[in-house]
Amino acid sequence: MHPIDHIGIAVNDLEASIKMYQETFGYEVDEREILEKSGVELVFLKAPNTLLELLRPLNDQSPIAKFLAKRGQGIHHICFRVPDIEAELKKLADQGVELIDKTPRPGAYNSKIAFIHPSSTDGTLIELCQREV
Amino acid sequence: MHPIDHIGIAVNDLEASIKMYQETFGYEVDEREILEKSGVELVFLKAPNTLLELLRPLNDQSPIAKFLAKRGQGIHHICFRVPDIEAELKKLADQGVELIDKTPRPGAYNSKIAFIHPSSTDGTLIELCQREV
Repeated sequence: MHPIDHIGIAVNDLEASIKMYQETFGYEVDEREILEKSGVELVFLKAPNTLLELLRPLNDQSPIAKFLAKRGQGIHHICFRVPDIEAELKKLADQGVELIDKTPRPGAYNSKIAFIHPSSTDGTLIELCQREV
Repeated sequence: MHPIDHIGIAVNDLEASIKMYQETFGYEVDEREILEKSGVELVFLKAPNTLLELLRPLNDQSPIAKFLAKRGQGIHHICFRVPDIEAELKKLADQGVELIDKTPRPGAYNSKIAFIHPSSTDGTLIELCQREV
């Protein structure tokens, strides 16, 4: 059974959202990264039992830009942390689960990540990640 | 700093979604409740560090029915667990945060819950809950 690594939240203005989460709820920044190939800048906020991940698009082609244009700011995905992402992706593919990423790509915290298509998970976008914690 | 109590996910068919989360990811049911006044049936799935909450509407007037009609199945809200919900709501109101529930109402697990308006939290619907764990 996988722990929830983080909850991904799409925002327009990272600085404004960091300030809101700090001032309103007391969450502090744990990590900040730019993933050029994925077209996103990420800020992780530390909760006692998991992380909140704020995402902003680097450009109009970013999937996050498309999400914001279509649905506005809000929760984008949930990430499950798995011990062996290649083995997990193979198991899911064998079960007929539709994968957005058939092989892992680099994520934040030196992780390997892959997204599952929401058509296989009742509308929820689910990310898998493998990383040291 | 508040732990993430659960992540709320709106679904059309609870049985189908329970089966999907069990068979695809191994999550098991922890609790199942009907909240008549809130117009929802809830199923909590246990992750090692938090809970996934599946919600289905009991009727067309349920806020979950409206969410499903507008946006389809998917992630609906995040819930932060707080030690004293009345004190937290007072603090937020004093800060000018817009509250959906100005006073707490009954939630699952004998909790007291209240929702914050997403206009004050950059588009993310945030619930607060106070309960024994």
